[in-house]
Amino acid sequence: MGREFLHLIDISTAHKIISNLFKEIYQQKIEEVELKDAYGRILARDVKSPIDLPPFNRASRDGYAVKAEDTFKASEDNPKILECIETIEAGSIPRKKIERGCCSRISTGAPVPEGADAIIMVEYTEEKGNKILIYKSAYPNQHIALRGSDISKNDTISKKGALLSPEKIGALSAAGISKVPVIAKLKVGILSTGNELIKPSDKWSPGKIFDSNSHSIAAAVKNCGCEPKILGIVKDDYMKLYNAIQSTIKKCDILITSGGTSAGAGDILRDIIDNMGEVIIHGISIKPGKPTLIGKVDDKLVFGLPGFPVSALIIFNVLLRPYLMEFSGKSSEHKHMMDLPLAQRLHSSKGRVHYALVKIRDEKAHPILKDSGAITSLADADGYIKIPKNVEILEEGSIVKVLPFF
Amino acid sequence: MGREFLHLIDISTAHKIISNLFKEIYQQKIEEVELKDAYGRILARDVKSPIDLPPFNRASRDGYAVKAEDTFKASEDNPKILECIETIEAGSIPRKKIERGCCSRISTGAPVPEGADAIIMVEYTEEKGNKILIYKSAYPNQHIALRGSDISKNDTISKKGALLSPEKIGALSAAGISKVPVIAKLKVGILSTGNELIKPSDKWSPGKIFDSNSHSIAAAVKNCGCEPKILGIVKDDYMKLYNAIQSTIKKCDILITSGGTSAGAGDILRDIIDNMGEVIIHGISIKPGKPTLIGKVDDKLVFGLPGFPVSALIIFNVLLRPYLMEFSGKSSEHKHMMDLPLAQRLHSSKGRVHYALVKIRDEKAHPILKDSGAITSLADADGYIKIPKNVEILEEGSIVKVLPFF
Repeated sequence: MGREFLHLIDISTAHKIISNLFKEIYQQKIEEVELKDAYGRILARDVKSPIDLPPFNRASRDGYAVKAEDTFKASEDNPKILECIETIEAGSIPRKKIERGCCSRISTGAPVPEGADAIIMVEYTEEKGNKILIYKSAYPNQHIALRGSDISKNDTISKKGALLSPEKIGALSAAGISKVPVIAKLKVGILSTGNELIKPSDKWSPGKIFDSNSHSIAAAVKNCGCEPKILGIVKDDYMKLYNAIQSTIKKCDILITSGGTSAGAGDILRDIIDNMGEVIIHGISIKPGKPTLIGKVDDKLVFGLPGFPVSALIIFNVLLRPYLMEFSGKSSEHKHMMDLPLAQRLHSSKGRVHYALVKIRDEKAHPILKDSGAITSLADADGYIKIPKNVEILEEGSIVKVLPFF
Repeated sequence: MGREFLHLIDISTAHKIISNLFKEIYQQKIEEVELKDAYGRILARDVKSPIDLPPFNRASRDGYAVKAEDTFKASEDNPKILECIETIEAGSIPRKKIERGCCSRISTGAPVPEGADAIIMVEYTEEKGNKILIYKSAYPNQHIALRGSDISKNDTISKKGALLSPEKIGALSAAGISKVPVIAKLKVGILSTGNELIKPSDKWSPGKIFDSNSHSIAAAVKNCGCEPKILGIVKDDYMKLYNAIQSTIKKCDILITSGGTSAGAGDILRDIIDNMGEVIIHGISIKPGKPTLIGKVDDKLVFGLPGFPVSALIIFNVLLRPYLMEFSGKSSEHKHMMDLPLAQRLHSSKGRVHYALVKIRDEKAHPILKDSGAITSLADADGYIKIPKNVEILEEGSIVKVLPFF
C-alpha cells in the first residue's frame, strides 16, 4: 500500500524550488478597478496626475480678491476703500478682471479672478454698499493656493507597489482619477478530497466528516491578498479526481488539493499529476506534511496538502503563504515574527523540521499538544514555531521564534 | 458672515461626549453570515459545537482494526495471525463486529468497528489471503481518535469577540457550522458638500474641484470594519442639504458630511441639524478641524467635518476612528503608536491641540509642511502626531508619538 516517495527533500530545498517556480510561472497582471473598490489593493503602475492641482489659483479663505498693492499701508485707522465689482462663489467662474481700486467678494475654494494677487480675509474688512473698507494690508499670493502648487500635471501621485490607503485614495480622487491599475489577484482553486467528506452545510450521516479545509484555506488565501475559489469535494478515485482537476485548473492560477486520507490516495494524486503534467516534489522531511506533493499542470502549480486540518493549514502557511504574499505585493510575514520563551518542555521528531502550534499567554509560547487531527488545537492556536530537524528536545524557557497567524 | 461657535470645547471634553453618545446610541447588532464570507469578521456570540468531534471513533492511520489483546506478545519472529473479515474505507460504515481472532482492514478517517479497540499500522502487518500476520503488539486506543475527544457536543468552539481567522473558520466548519453570528457592520453614510465639487469620474470644467473626501473617508470607514455608503455631492444650499440628510439618514447608522467651504456654509449645516435634531458640539479647539460639528438626528450621530481633504481625514481619525474600531470589535489603534524623534523643528499654534502629518524615514518623524488644502501631503504621509495645546515649538529630536495610518 503506497509507493515510496520520489525523494524526501528538505525544507530549504523545497523553498528554493517553489521560489523558482513562482518566478518562472507567475507574472504580475494588471487590472483596472473603480476607486471605491481599490482600498487595500496594490498599485501596479506609477500614477501621474492628469491635471494641475489646484486646477486654478484658488482662494483658501473667505474674503476679497484684491491687487495687493491696493492694500499697502491699510490699517484700522486708515482703511483703504475698494469697489466690489463681483461675487465669486466656489464652483463658479469669475467674469470680471480686477483693475486698480477694485475687488471681488470671494469664497474659499473659488477661482481667484484675473488681475487679483491676494485675498483679504473677511474679518479685516467692512462692507458699505458696494464700497469695501480694507483694514489690513496683504502680501502678494496671500491666501491663494496657486495652480499646480500641490501637484503639477504629469507629476507622480502614487508609485507602483503602493498600498492603496485612505490617504492615497484621497490623493488619486482629487486628481480626478476614478479607476486605478492594481495588481490582479491570483486565483487559487481549492479542492478537498476524501470519501468521508461532506460540506458543513450538509446533514451529517454516520461515517462522514465535515470538510473544514476548503473554508480554512480559502480564508488563508484571502489573507494573502489572493482570490480563493472553493471547488468542492471529490472522492478518492482516479477518474473523479482527474476530471475535477482537468475541469477546474483552467479557471485558476494555482490549485490546492488537500486530503485523500484513504489508502493509496496519495498515489492517486501523484499518478494524475504525472499523467497531466509533472510531479516536482513528493515528500518533504517536515512534520506535519511529509507527503506534500507539488506539481505543474498546464503551467500552473498544483499543491497537494495533507488532509488533516491542522497539517493542511500549517503546510499552507509554510509553503504557500510567503510566495502568495510576495506576489500580491503584501509585506512579508517575517516582520511580525516574535521571540518568546517556551512555557514548557517540548519533544520534537529528530530528522524532520517540526512545526508546532502554540498559544501565546503571558508573553510565553505554550505548545498545543494535541494530535494533528484535532481541530480544536487550531481554534486555540495563535501561531506556530519551527523546530530545526536536529533538535529532539526544547527545554522550558528556550527562546523560540513564533510566527503568529495574524 | 458666520456666527460664533456655540462653545469652543477642548478635545478631551469632545472625546468624553462622543464616547458617551456612542454608548447611549449604538448597540451591537448580530447578523448571520455564510462561512465563506466570515473571514475577518468578529463573532457576536459564543458558538458551541452541535456534534461530538470526531463524530465517531476514527482511525488515524491506515491498517487493521483489532482487539488489542489479540496482538499482545506479537513480534517479528512470532506474528499473531488474525482473520480479515471486512474492508472499511473512509466515509463508509463498518458492518461487522470484531470478535476475538478477527480484524478489519481500515483506512485513515474511517469509523473503527464495534469490538475493536486499536489500529495496527499496515507497515507492521503482512497479508496472506484473508489471513493477516501481525508483527507488533498494540495498546488499547492506539491510533484511534475517540468520539468527542477533540470537541464534545455543546463545547464552546469559539468565543464572542473572536476575530474569525482561517484557524477559527476551520474549527467551525469541522463542526458542521455553515453560518456564523457576527457583529453587524455599522453603516456610515458619507455626503460631500460644496458648490465647486464634481465626482472624480466627471469631466473637469473651469472652477470645479474633484471631490476626494467621499472616497478617502469611505476607505477609512472600511478600515474600521464598518460599511461605507457614498451618498454623493450636495450643493451648499439649505433645502438641498436638508433634503439630502433627511432622505439618507434612514439608510445609515452614522452620517458624515464634509465641506461646505463657501461663506456661511458651516451655519447651513448647524441650522439644519438644529431643526432636524440637536447640535451637540460645534467648534473644537484643535487644528485642523476647529469648525467640526457633531449632532444627533433621529437618534443617529451626524459628524460635520471640514472640507479640506487633509483636515477631513485627520478629524475622522481623531474623532471617529477609535469609536468605530471599538464598536466593530477591532483592536485599538493605540497599540500601534510609535515613539520617534522629530526630524526637524516644528511650530505649532498655541491654544489649540495641533495634529500634524508626518512621514517616517530613517526611524524619524518628518513633518509635512504643506497647507491642509494640499492633497499631496496626504499621499506622502505615514501618520500624524498630536501636539498639546500649550506647546508652541517642538525642537528637532524631541520624541513624539506617531499614530500611523496603517
